[in-house]
Amino acid sequence: MSLIDKLSWRYATKKFDANKKIAADKLEQLLATVRLAPSSLGLHHYKVIVVENPEVREQLKAAAYGQTQITDASQLIVFAAETNIDEAYVNKYVDEIVKVRQIPHDSLEGYKGMMLGSVNGQTTEQKIAWAHKQAYIGLGVLVSAAAELDIDSCPMEGFNPAQFDEILGLKEKGLTTSVIVTIGYRSAEDATANFVKVRKPAEELFVNV
Amino acid sequence: MSLIDKLSWRYATKKFDANKKIAADKLEQLLATVRLAPSSLGLHHYKVIVVENPEVREQLKAAAYGQTQITDASQLIVFAAETNIDEAYVNKYVDEIVKVRQIPHDSLEGYKGMMLGSVNGQTTEQKIAWAHKQAYIGLGVLVSAAAELDIDSCPMEGFNPAQFDEILGLKEKGLTTSVIVTIGYRSAEDATANFVKVRKPAEELFVNV
Repeated sequence: MSLIDKLSWRYATKKFDANKKIAADKLEQLLATVRLAPSSLGLHHYKVIVVENPEVREQLKAAAYGQTQITDASQLIVFAAETNIDEAYVNKYVDEIVKVRQIPHDSLEGYKGMMLGSVNGQTTEQKIAWAHKQAYIGLGVLVSAAAELDIDSCPMEGFNPAQFDEILGLKEKGLTTSVIVTIGYRSAEDATANFVKVRKPAEELFVNV
Repeated sequence: MSLIDKLSWRYATKKFDANKKIAADKLEQLLATVRLAPSSLGLHHYKVIVVENPEVREQLKAAAYGQTQITDASQLIVFAAETNIDEAYVNKYVDEIVKVRQIPHDSLEGYKGMMLGSVNGQTTEQKIAWAHKQAYIGLGVLVSAAAELDIDSCPMEGFNPAQFDEILGLKEKGLTTSVIVTIGYRSAEDATANFVKVRKPAEELFVNV
């Protein structure tokens, strides 16, 4: 099946089968794709929180208008933007490049300067908006990879970010909730699975120049 | 090859082979995946501008620090956020659902009310930020699908959005540039193709709850 067929098969799953869990090796594969998602300057401005704990999920459901996907899905994934992207954050990334590529630190001076210029030229608010957008790239990759692996997903914006931050203790970790996605397998009872997909007509979505 | 292998193969291509074009059917497949990308409430808050015109690309290159991918890649894709997401925009989407699903208009009153509540509860600035984030989902899907189709890509934020808007005449179309990506095939001379990929270590990226 081509990726187009897989993406046509997927839909924002409203009701998950609460008894069907994603196999550990499949979950690992799925998460590995998110790790490979591109990000601006390679700074990977977010963390990926995999929530399985039932009590925590009950609390998060209450902070998401009671949407049952939060507790019924195999896992809840929370993309959490880094709120402290600063010089130390950039230095840590540079150290990682040096280690992985086994190259001299000096050879990255230009790149590091460019990154610091970008980071220091933004207000905290701008940097958080920047981080949120990178998280959405991760979401796009995750949703595609899930479809590829025959895993259902439901990306969700309908939740209270401040409450999510509070429940997950994100503020003290320098994080804030960007967007969430539930993953697992559709329930046979989810009537919305059969709805014909509606998308912006191609002639409106695409512009050729 | 699994999607993980494909995503490992991909990298932010610095130098494209200016003589290698993406075949028309492959380009069509790639764009079709972006049309299938999810978006908040299904509103698909952006357009996808496929730029091939060499003169326009020269102008855009100048507005992107002279980065040669802009002119050398097979195509330049500009994700442009909708700046007028209002009641009329929502109504148009509702009409499309009615048409595609052949259901009565009345059956969507609740969903429409929910969408209008969300749209009318945001300032113009908030709605544009919202639209930008949806465009980044599209980018994540495009980059994944490109890798799947053995197409190279380079997502780019290093450009002047106001100049892009001006050159492409976006303001009068109710659009503003979100993010761009060049697509095509890597040049054999692109040394960066062989760089070992650096990503946030899994133990830092992932948090289990």
